[in-house]
Amino acid sequence: MVMFMWAEGTTTGQQEEVAEKLGELPGVIPEIREYSLGTNAGVNPDAYDFAVVGDFADRAAYLVYRDHPAHRAVIDQYITPIVAQRAAIQYEL
Amino acid sequence: MVMFMWAEGTTTGQQEEVAEKLGELPGVIPEIREYSLGTNAGVNPDAYDFAVVGDFADRAAYLVYRDHPAHRAVIDQYITPIVAQRAAIQYEL
Repeated sequence: MVMFMWAEGTTTGQQEEVAEKLGELPGVIPEIREYSLGTNAGVNPDAYDFAVVGDFADRAAYLVYRDHPAHRAVIDQYITPIVAQRAAIQYEL
Repeated sequence: MVMFMWAEGTTTGQQEEVAEKLGELPGVIPEIREYSLGTNAGVNPDAYDFAVVGDFADRAAYLVYRDHPAHRAVIDQYITPIVAQRAAIQYEL
């Protein structure tokens, strides 16, 4: 699971594009078991802006997703250009 | 949901204590609908060390949890002393 804080000046259009492009990945990468995208609800100050939570059968399935060209393309084209901060963790349920 | 990176020198005992004390909260705070704790699996470099994912019926239920004395006590006594970095976001499913 990953959280992003977008850079100053990021537009809502750019943010929506990230959600839209990521939202296409479950249709392209069958190793994604569950995939949840969330925009900060504004409850607390200092919160991150956007979250991506993925569930995978095992570490191998996660790695297929992590390194999948369709995923990397979204990161490179839509996420990296607007990221100010990123926080991530992978853990076993 | 929250991620923590523990400070240099934090012991495994201290980390286990955090998980143990947080794990008691669902029994004390009925507003917690689902509660999941995870320790970094070590798949990626730069990952955070520990994650807390809570699910709540609504914003009001989350706020009860956030401000509950039992929760604040765990934060103050066990988490704050060992936190190096914290990343958090609240979003609607």
